[in-house]
Amino acid sequence: MAQHGIFITFEGVEGAGKTVQVQRFATALGANVLVTREPGGTPISERIREVFLTAEGITAKTELLLIAAARAQHVAEVIRPALEANQIVLCDRFIDATVAYQGYRSGIELALINQLNRLATCGITPNLTFVLDLPPEIGLQRKPQQDKACSDRLHREPLEFHHKVREGYLAVARAEPHRVKLIDATQDADAVHAALLAEYQKYLSR
Amino acid sequence: MAQHGIFITFEGVEGAGKTVQVQRFATALGANVLVTREPGGTPISERIREVFLTAEGITAKTELLLIAAARAQHVAEVIRPALEANQIVLCDRFIDATVAYQGYRSGIELALINQLNRLATCGITPNLTFVLDLPPEIGLQRKPQQDKACSDRLHREPLEFHHKVREGYLAVARAEPHRVKLIDATQDADAVHAALLAEYQKYLSR
Repeated sequence: MAQHGIFITFEGVEGAGKTVQVQRFATALGANVLVTREPGGTPISERIREVFLTAEGITAKTELLLIAAARAQHVAEVIRPALEANQIVLCDRFIDATVAYQGYRSGIELALINQLNRLATCGITPNLTFVLDLPPEIGLQRKPQQDKACSDRLHREPLEFHHKVREGYLAVARAEPHRVKLIDATQDADAVHAALLAEYQKYLSR
Repeated sequence: MAQHGIFITFEGVEGAGKTVQVQRFATALGANVLVTREPGGTPISERIREVFLTAEGITAKTELLLIAAARAQHVAEVIRPALEANQIVLCDRFIDATVAYQGYRSGIELALINQLNRLATCGITPNLTFVLDLPPEIGLQRKPQQDKACSDRLHREPLEFHHKVREGYLAVARAEPHRVKLIDATQDADAVHAALLAEYQKYLSR
């Protein structure tokens, strides 16, 4: 399928500052930018997100299939049409989050995850992916200040969980260095923002 | 995986009388019977069912993945433990509904549906499946009397949709005659009930 726009995804462990950086990046780019997130991004997918985040006792396989369902709707309804309309799409989490969370943390085999990702996306992949990397200890310390009301089940997982997620992201960055750029998120927000814009300029001048 | 109990599923187009017949069948069998349904059967799966039934504009692929997610949770949390505890499990719709609704009606390829069914069920298949068969025209005429409040989106599909679903069920019955028994659901409820019990006796005496 032809992708005419530019598709950029933002990934990272909890507290890496993704959500803030996506917004700053969008503001810096100006017009023709669509900001969205996963799981979510459409009314149906947001309802699935709600089930996903609050479902105590959910199995790893159910999680994986729910994420894939929300993604299928999101790609069909939002991402694909925006790319076909030549927009720049910025998405807070996408396929790599599934590799990191469901693959590395929950131990589901990567072949299955990749297959469900392909099914849900119809082969649409990000042109550029930023992994905002930092030790989970720092991210989790930051998170309460960012969102004191945050009480979904992922935030209550033990530190071990978040280390595995980080390991997953690092593996993704090693496997696809052309697409996936590691950004040091221990820096302050201005420095991270500047690093993201610099990587974006490099991408544009390729 | 060892399945010690007996797993029986009830399938059919809208208005075929499944729900009533499952209950009568359960009553006739007496003790040690678990009655459940799909999509649903666990708190998480019922929440997915709610999204599924009320999601206007949902894509066929999203539907398929949501059903698989609900099924994965249902099998892990309810069906598998009950079978391992030697119970008789009666389920209102299961894997064949996905073949009929998502395969025959929505045109998703059967290989993909079968693969997701295997993933969600960990290979647990019904010992016996009843397809309550009748022309959709009759089923849809009956349905309003059964449930006047019924307003989910599947009931508002055109007749053509329901014909394709029936075609799917007939194909399933042809493909697996040993497991899947066609029951003439144009008969009155007592006759259908008797036919189900007769097939069950045949199964037990195999």
